[in-house]
Amino acid sequence: MSVKGSIFEPPIDLRNHSSLIYAEGVFGLDSRKKFSMRAKTADGILRYADYEIAGVVDSQSREKTAGEVLRDYLAGRENFKTPIFSDLKEARQKTNADVLILGAAREGGAFPKEWEKDIELAMNSKMHLVSGTHFSFAKDERWSGLAKKNNVLIWDARMVSGSFKIPVGSARAYYMKKPVVLTVGMDAAIGKMTVAYEMSVAAKGLGMKSCVIPTGQTAIIIEGWGVSIDALPADFMAGAVETMLLEKEEDFDIFFVEGQGSLFHPAFSNTCISLIHGAVPTHMVLVHRPQREHSIGSKLVKLPSIKEAIYQYEGIILPRYRNAKVIAVALNSSGMGDEEYSKYKESAEKESGLPVFDAVRERGAVAGVISNLKSVSI
Amino acid sequence: MSVKGSIFEPPIDLRNHSSLIYAEGVFGLDSRKKFSMRAKTADGILRYADYEIAGVVDSQSREKTAGEVLRDYLAGRENFKTPIFSDLKEARQKTNADVLILGAAREGGAFPKEWEKDIELAMNSKMHLVSGTHFSFAKDERWSGLAKKNNVLIWDARMVSGSFKIPVGSARAYYMKKPVVLTVGMDAAIGKMTVAYEMSVAAKGLGMKSCVIPTGQTAIIIEGWGVSIDALPADFMAGAVETMLLEKEEDFDIFFVEGQGSLFHPAFSNTCISLIHGAVPTHMVLVHRPQREHSIGSKLVKLPSIKEAIYQYEGIILPRYRNAKVIAVALNSSGMGDEEYSKYKESAEKESGLPVFDAVRERGAVAGVISNLKSVSI
Repeated sequence: MSVKGSIFEPPIDLRNHSSLIYAEGVFGLDSRKKFSMRAKTADGILRYADYEIAGVVDSQSREKTAGEVLRDYLAGRENFKTPIFSDLKEARQKTNADVLILGAAREGGAFPKEWEKDIELAMNSKMHLVSGTHFSFAKDERWSGLAKKNNVLIWDARMVSGSFKIPVGSARAYYMKKPVVLTVGMDAAIGKMTVAYEMSVAAKGLGMKSCVIPTGQTAIIIEGWGVSIDALPADFMAGAVETMLLEKEEDFDIFFVEGQGSLFHPAFSNTCISLIHGAVPTHMVLVHRPQREHSIGSKLVKLPSIKEAIYQYEGIILPRYRNAKVIAVALNSSGMGDEEYSKYKESAEKESGLPVFDAVRERGAVAGVISNLKSVSI
Repeated sequence: MSVKGSIFEPPIDLRNHSSLIYAEGVFGLDSRKKFSMRAKTADGILRYADYEIAGVVDSQSREKTAGEVLRDYLAGRENFKTPIFSDLKEARQKTNADVLILGAAREGGAFPKEWEKDIELAMNSKMHLVSGTHFSFAKDERWSGLAKKNNVLIWDARMVSGSFKIPVGSARAYYMKKPVVLTVGMDAAIGKMTVAYEMSVAAKGLGMKSCVIPTGQTAIIIEGWGVSIDALPADFMAGAVETMLLEKEEDFDIFFVEGQGSLFHPAFSNTCISLIHGAVPTHMVLVHRPQREHSIGSKLVKLPSIKEAIYQYEGIILPRYRNAKVIAVALNSSGMGDEEYSKYKESAEKESGLPVFDAVRERGAVAGVISNLKSVSI
């Protein structure tokens, strides 16, 4: 995918570089038992990015390749054998990497002091820096000075540059004459990004030119462009999604928009509805976690039934005559045994009348749903 | 209303001061023919604020009192006889005002250069400054320096101070055991603030302690506190409304939350849903402009029928068991003749099965609806 021509173009095109993922203290299996979500960005890049990854850096990992850690998630994919290095210096010497991507998350998006030495080492050995933390390296005197001295670039992927010229959304994505599939959630933090990517992988497998529209920091780093919708002023959230789609329309056959939040999460429903009204999807896929009964946003909010959720998402589309339908229910069933999963899946199929699958467990089922979109006329 | 104790407490409590409204070139009837919306803040303050207004400044106005300009809108209200001065110096000499409120709007919220001389004069004659423009006087060296020199305060009412500690919304307003009435719109810019205020005036007339929750810049200046919801980071929009309500719960009998945007406006649906999920209203009033067929946000978006709009707003409430109902339809019928209005009103009553009124034309009807809320148990 070309980054050029987007108003969300970053300073570095990762497709022209080789990158190391810095996942210190979070990537190995031991660390995951303590901090289950901290390697999310590293995992996303390894599973879905189409640029070169030279290795992962984690001094605490006992595993030596990404495949040993992520197993099934990387089965049959490019980065199964990607090495894990125990220190940055070694990684820099043994690979041709010239970009360091900070791929470990900390509480509240912070940037911990103990990374400083390695980031300094990276810049001094002429590596560019990509960060998804809430800290702006480019705006910090020390780091921007060091980057300048070494003639390397900084990309703060979570930051919104003031120079973006985003229009206020006006439902113009309605004019797209290609499938635009939005993942919508029963709740926030439920797996909408993963489902968007698994569908995109399936579409590529079917020979389609597929584009993921990245709306959050992890997908932005995976894609190498995009904008964090929830970091924008309210008035421009829908317009940003609209703009991303229209910019890419000509280059692809099908679009998967990474959803955010949920209509049923009391604080993150705003980002969700901005994506619905900005993307004007032709199809939606509902992502659901069977074990979750209440929104993570409030114990007061019981999540609706699958049927009710589908009804609500289909009813909120603008313009109404887009007539977008939920075409599948994607289950996030991690932790469920096979029998429990099969039983739940069967009942969900009965309730919804739709294909139901866990996109990671059943890649074949994903391909089945996507193949139906190959010949759809919009 | 006390401002103290709110996390949205401004630097100046307008209830302890006397204010002049600076509405240069926009307030008089002649100017209104050219720029119909530019005196919106001035008008709102004169109609609804409960602090002292010493006068309006507009050198272009041929009218000499606010009542001559706003007529019916001010009939029977405090500021009917409030004088219009043709220059600030005279106004300062003839009144005891010690606050200047910028009450004229320009394209895009700008602050025009030709106001500078008067603002300088105001500060040098020891007046505090209140601004709802997008320009921050407090952060500007020249103006903050001048304020400091004269020992006067600056309140940038549209700005969000970084020191607010707003929680992420979690539907806690559900615990409010008093009526919380939210105005929701068929579209954006349709009169939701006016309807909230007319209902609040009616509630006060019925002897209730009534509070308007201000969510946009005009109402914030009218109330003397509050926060522009659409100026907040997405994650905190619902939490801000929730916080404002909970802070005020004990001091009032009934709450009217100023709505923003609309579920049917493609770019401003996010702010709308944040208010719904943050306020967790017990009742809603739908504001509708009969002449409007499409959203001002997109010619593609045909507005729904009254019945459909009510259905959508009632269906999006969280938690579902709040069971909030739309209890009336408020028409913004300006420009409609009496006969046309009566006819439309009758058909809307038939369609909705609810009381229908223009809150400005029929104050009695507003009082009728509010009196039903006096004894409601939540």
